[in-house]
Amino acid sequence: MSGWVVIAGLGPGDEALVTPEVTAALSEATDIVGYIPYVRRIAPREGLRLHESDNRVELDRSRHALEMAAEGRRVVVVSSGDPGVFAMASAVFEAVEAGPSEWRALEIRVLPGITAMLAAAARAGAPLGHDFCAINLSDNLKPWSLIEKRLRLAAEADFAMGFYNPRSKSRPEGFGRALDVLREVCEPERVIIFARAVSTPKEALRVVHLCDATPDMADMRTVVLVGSSLTRIIEREGADPWVYTPRSVPA
Amino acid sequence: MSGWVVIAGLGPGDEALVTPEVTAALSEATDIVGYIPYVRRIAPREGLRLHESDNRVELDRSRHALEMAAEGRRVVVVSSGDPGVFAMASAVFEAVEAGPSEWRALEIRVLPGITAMLAAAARAGAPLGHDFCAINLSDNLKPWSLIEKRLRLAAEADFAMGFYNPRSKSRPEGFGRALDVLREVCEPERVIIFARAVSTPKEALRVVHLCDATPDMADMRTVVLVGSSLTRIIEREGADPWVYTPRSVPA
Repeated sequence: MSGWVVIAGLGPGDEALVTPEVTAALSEATDIVGYIPYVRRIAPREGLRLHESDNRVELDRSRHALEMAAEGRRVVVVSSGDPGVFAMASAVFEAVEAGPSEWRALEIRVLPGITAMLAAAARAGAPLGHDFCAINLSDNLKPWSLIEKRLRLAAEADFAMGFYNPRSKSRPEGFGRALDVLREVCEPERVIIFARAVSTPKEALRVVHLCDATPDMADMRTVVLVGSSLTRIIEREGADPWVYTPRSVPA
Repeated sequence: MSGWVVIAGLGPGDEALVTPEVTAALSEATDIVGYIPYVRRIAPREGLRLHESDNRVELDRSRHALEMAAEGRRVVVVSSGDPGVFAMASAVFEAVEAGPSEWRALEIRVLPGITAMLAAAARAGAPLGHDFCAINLSDNLKPWSLIEKRLRLAAEADFAMGFYNPRSKSRPEGFGRALDVLREVCEPERVIIFARAVSTPKEALRVVHLCDATPDMADMRTVVLVGSSLTRIIEREGADPWVYTPRSVPA
């Protein structure tokens, strides 16, 4: 078998954030598989087949990619950000484990990318500059009680945090509940960053304190960063503030 | 002032993991500042000054970069991985906050990179495919009691985890204590990945269960990944296993 599957991270949007490793894999591919807006980031060329699919069909898409690789095709499954962070890599391995044993002999490689949380942090300064966690706030694939438990324990541990999928039209309530959990554990001045569409023309950053944060500040294109208790804001004249979390925690 | 400071992530080692954005900044720089092994990754060229400094002088290095930028130089502070993850970005903003107010008017940009934890995860499969946290196990800049508290709460939250700086010659004991904390909370079969020097010629990955993990499996070039309770190993004939954390948590 000479086919392969590469699961590649396209980063948050800007082509200057796509690694040369991913660019090389795309140039060798015969087939691109992925969610519609990510496949549309790939320039068409002769001999390259583009397979767009809708959201929430990750396992079907994974099986399709694996079947094509088993037939000798060179398939790139595209994710935004990093494929290992709330993206396609887990779905492909779920499909492998549940699939025919021949799929375990395939060449499958995951190529990392710049994940939204770290792109957003870089824009704001260094808010994740100490221990941090990443939580997907969607309860499509896990119970809300687990999200709430993780939020509470992460706040007690004084992690900085990055929230993916904070809010969507089909889940308008969850993010407000997440803010309520934070308010139970954290001080009102806790720093919150709403980072929307980072590295795209629609990029917008907003830095607020927890007491001023409202659910409508987030949508499905927003990553929310929450500072630790030590996170600081550096105010600047005529420019957005910088936010950073110090490297040291006093004893 | 036409000078600037860019804090750039060089990724874990492989040049194919350096983003085009970082490459462009390096080509415009007049000065490169950083820890010796990272500065040595930059190709010398006419007109480019390379300023190597030792470990543990991050604030001096930051001030030096800011001073040069204030004089009109174009300075790139290089970090391995992502500069916002246990690297130079926080140090630069600490120096800004404590420094002269003119520094707040400087152009300072953070350019994200592929951080070691996500590069290691990509090599193993998708072990961080669900909620996860990142903890620096060095107690140089924080009390050990805080590390232990965070480990315990993260394990109770059932996060997957990435540990940076698990063990060094000057701190031989900490990582064994971290494993002891995990053993108190997690089942013996919990999946642990020791990922050394990922993306370099010396790369080595080792997948074990918590009950078989020993402190000597980590050194200062190792990132340690810990699965959640749901993380799975896909065994393969004649090849390293794949490790992934499913996207779903049953109610």
